[in-house]
Amino acid sequence: MFFTKKKKKINGDSDIQNLANIVGEKSILYEKEDLLSYDCDGFTIHKSMPKAVVFPKDTEEVASIVKYLTTNKLPFLARGAGTGLSGGSIPLNGEIIISLVKMKKLLSVDFENRQAVVQPGFVNLKLTNSISDKGYYYAPDPSSQYVCTIGGNVAENAGGAHCLKYGVTTNHILGLEVVLPNGEIIEISEDGVPDAPGYDLLGLLTGSEGTLGIVTKITVRILKNPEGKQTVLAYFDDVEDGSHAVSDIISEGIVPAALEMMDKTAIEGVEAGTYPVGHPDDIEALLLIEVDGIIAGIDEQINEILNVCKKRNVREVKVAESEEERGKWWANRKTGFGAMGAISPDYIVQDGVIPRSKLPEVLRDIAKISKESGLRIANIFHAGDGNLHPLILFDSRNPGETEKALKAGSACLKACADVGGSITGEHGVGIEKIEEMRFIFTVEELQVQTDVRDVFNPENLLNKGKLFPTPSRCMDVKKMPKGTVAN
Amino acid sequence: MFFTKKKKKINGDSDIQNLANIVGEKSILYEKEDLLSYDCDGFTIHKSMPKAVVFPKDTEEVASIVKYLTTNKLPFLARGAGTGLSGGSIPLNGEIIISLVKMKKLLSVDFENRQAVVQPGFVNLKLTNSISDKGYYYAPDPSSQYVCTIGGNVAENAGGAHCLKYGVTTNHILGLEVVLPNGEIIEISEDGVPDAPGYDLLGLLTGSEGTLGIVTKITVRILKNPEGKQTVLAYFDDVEDGSHAVSDIISEGIVPAALEMMDKTAIEGVEAGTYPVGHPDDIEALLLIEVDGIIAGIDEQINEILNVCKKRNVREVKVAESEEERGKWWANRKTGFGAMGAISPDYIVQDGVIPRSKLPEVLRDIAKISKESGLRIANIFHAGDGNLHPLILFDSRNPGETEKALKAGSACLKACADVGGSITGEHGVGIEKIEEMRFIFTVEELQVQTDVRDVFNPENLLNKGKLFPTPSRCMDVKKMPKGTVAN
Repeated sequence: MFFTKKKKKINGDSDIQNLANIVGEKSILYEKEDLLSYDCDGFTIHKSMPKAVVFPKDTEEVASIVKYLTTNKLPFLARGAGTGLSGGSIPLNGEIIISLVKMKKLLSVDFENRQAVVQPGFVNLKLTNSISDKGYYYAPDPSSQYVCTIGGNVAENAGGAHCLKYGVTTNHILGLEVVLPNGEIIEISEDGVPDAPGYDLLGLLTGSEGTLGIVTKITVRILKNPEGKQTVLAYFDDVEDGSHAVSDIISEGIVPAALEMMDKTAIEGVEAGTYPVGHPDDIEALLLIEVDGIIAGIDEQINEILNVCKKRNVREVKVAESEEERGKWWANRKTGFGAMGAISPDYIVQDGVIPRSKLPEVLRDIAKISKESGLRIANIFHAGDGNLHPLILFDSRNPGETEKALKAGSACLKACADVGGSITGEHGVGIEKIEEMRFIFTVEELQVQTDVRDVFNPENLLNKGKLFPTPSRCMDVKKMPKGTVAN
Repeated sequence: MFFTKKKKKINGDSDIQNLANIVGEKSILYEKEDLLSYDCDGFTIHKSMPKAVVFPKDTEEVASIVKYLTTNKLPFLARGAGTGLSGGSIPLNGEIIISLVKMKKLLSVDFENRQAVVQPGFVNLKLTNSISDKGYYYAPDPSSQYVCTIGGNVAENAGGAHCLKYGVTTNHILGLEVVLPNGEIIEISEDGVPDAPGYDLLGLLTGSEGTLGIVTKITVRILKNPEGKQTVLAYFDDVEDGSHAVSDIISEGIVPAALEMMDKTAIEGVEAGTYPVGHPDDIEALLLIEVDGIIAGIDEQINEILNVCKKRNVREVKVAESEEERGKWWANRKTGFGAMGAISPDYIVQDGVIPRSKLPEVLRDIAKISKESGLRIANIFHAGDGNLHPLILFDSRNPGETEKALKAGSACLKACADVGGSITGEHGVGIEKIEEMRFIFTVEELQVQTDVRDVFNPENLLNKGKLFPTPSRCMDVKKMPKGTVAN
């Protein structure tokens, strides 16, 4: 009598076992209760379960995992902190999730050449915290920066309040190490090679929403702290006055570090939230404006801003008197989305972009959409760069209201597209805005994009179903004419 | 007896006739004497004749031409003013050249949203001249800006002296209309749609050196003139002192609009050229530094710059006292390459990029290459962003000297690559630096790039033989180790 050595299987599944052999059994989750928190990201409307979650500790493990998955035709996707707002890391096809949270080191800082190298799981705000004692910071500052990872920021080309002056993530990425879907490791402008020739693959990968490869090392630009900084809060009795003040400030040739706006409904929300400031409850709009740079120039710019506000009938305007006061104003703004929970059981945040001059027009359109849908819409947004965030407030317990809210959100994006704008400024397309891609792209234009994807991701095993409409959903539909509302 | 109607042929060539039918017989050149000036561009070392040159007047004609050429498998390429310095528009394969000089309109300007739409043949400097009365300008300023076209700037991702603060062409392109090699017309961020979702095709096309498509309409960002501007000229007795001053200025947190450097040989050249300034003939280096912005901040920055220069043993430093004086200094700098003709029968200009902190080290390497080759090398460059322009001076009448100069140029690029830099900052790869691509890319990395090209340009009919080494030249060679010198 003899024995055949039984092949070991975790959970009776050889794929799980083989992945565990790569990362170690403590670095893989596969039990249903462990997987529950990976069924969605910051976009909570849609949920779908992964097959497993693996936690590689270095680039080589990522490459080995990817090679295994590709060889065995298993769908997979990468995930950072899961704070994305458009569903980019939701496993639609029972994916194996490759979580990069264990790759969270700050690898090096080169102050002389102003760059730092991080692993993808490194948290955004930690970078600034690690270099601020030397007088440096990392500019892109999404509101989730205390928890979101720089790898996720690269995938979504994240923005933030201070991107008006300093640009979004893509303007701060100098180099990437990437594991391609075939398991090959490539370096793009390794360690920040300046002005690498050939095609701009750095730009192509940044904002590709996890569909082209898995970023395993990132070289970012760091900036010297500005010499000074001043922050203004301005209250308006009329939304249009506030909107015009935004355009006027830019027309004066001032580029504020940040230029944020909130409307009455948004103010009601943030004042009911965790960080109230004590804004008057009867104003129609507020602007939060920050100017930074050489101290000698700041006062002059602040004076010009105050003049613009006066000309636009501001009710009250104040300059922050301390870093503490400034911090309170920013906490009030940056926790704005979450604060909506205090005035509404549910909300959807949208993310349209418009030419700055169209602000009054589109805010009127959004008010109309709110009226027609019967749902309140709060606006809290990066006014300076025309990046709107309509927050559609609803109650999912009321039958049909979720669908109504989704439809209103889509209508807001159509209003943005119709004035020559875009359907996402910083949150990405993910699964949320796939249908809305048709507002701005023709079938031929989408085809070029998916052809590019197929070069990197030929079998579409990596993050399938994201970013682009599938042929059956779009191939027979031409770019939607202006004024059409998405179904 | 009956006649067969003879098919009309220009020059006995039905392709020429068919192209003439598209653009009109006055808009095509095909006689040898007419083609002579199209056998090279600003890179004059290599010459090769086109089959014909066509001059379409609009996008539809470009698309018709391209469709005809692709259907008939005829190689082709696009050309602007032909000022490129790396041979990107040289017809290596008897191409039909599609000259875009007749498409030279400024189509629209939108001051409120700070953008303008131009045709590709529109001359760079004309844009600033067209909008300066309203207080606006277009930032990218290659030294050839009085004649080069914005279409060519997009192809090469052109830089310029003021790109240190404001960024290169890719940072100012908001939208493109492109005729693909199959004749299809696509729009990428049509009319400057802000933050278009999907892959960054805008970045991919910009700097693709005419290998992915032909740009037929360009939306660019325009900027408000800075309130004030001051310019400093600083003379040093020691190159290393000058180099350290560059790093120190940036370390102070100042971002000058421009920070240019010339060494002793370069100064000898510009002083013998058309716009001499009267620089002392015994200094080893000069810096030309410009600061712009809000007036209140400029004096403070100029003072800090003067302090840095003093600390670094500057011999003499002056601030321009009038716009006229400033203009003279810039004319002296911007005509610098051509001025070398006054002190040498021939020269090759190279275009390496290095991390700023490596400036002293690489300048020493270049001096060594000069000594070893027995050829003088002048350095005139954008020091602030580490973009070196070694000018190798030689005499092509001496047998073997051209080859020696090319080898010295390549060695300069290797020195840049070895310190983590790049082989081109703003002139492109073209045909000139194809072999040098191996200094910074592995075969696998080049393969990803050519795979991307094949999506757009599958038959490689468009601008064949540019930008990438062909497989036979590179596929069996691994990325070159540090210290190797190209043959």
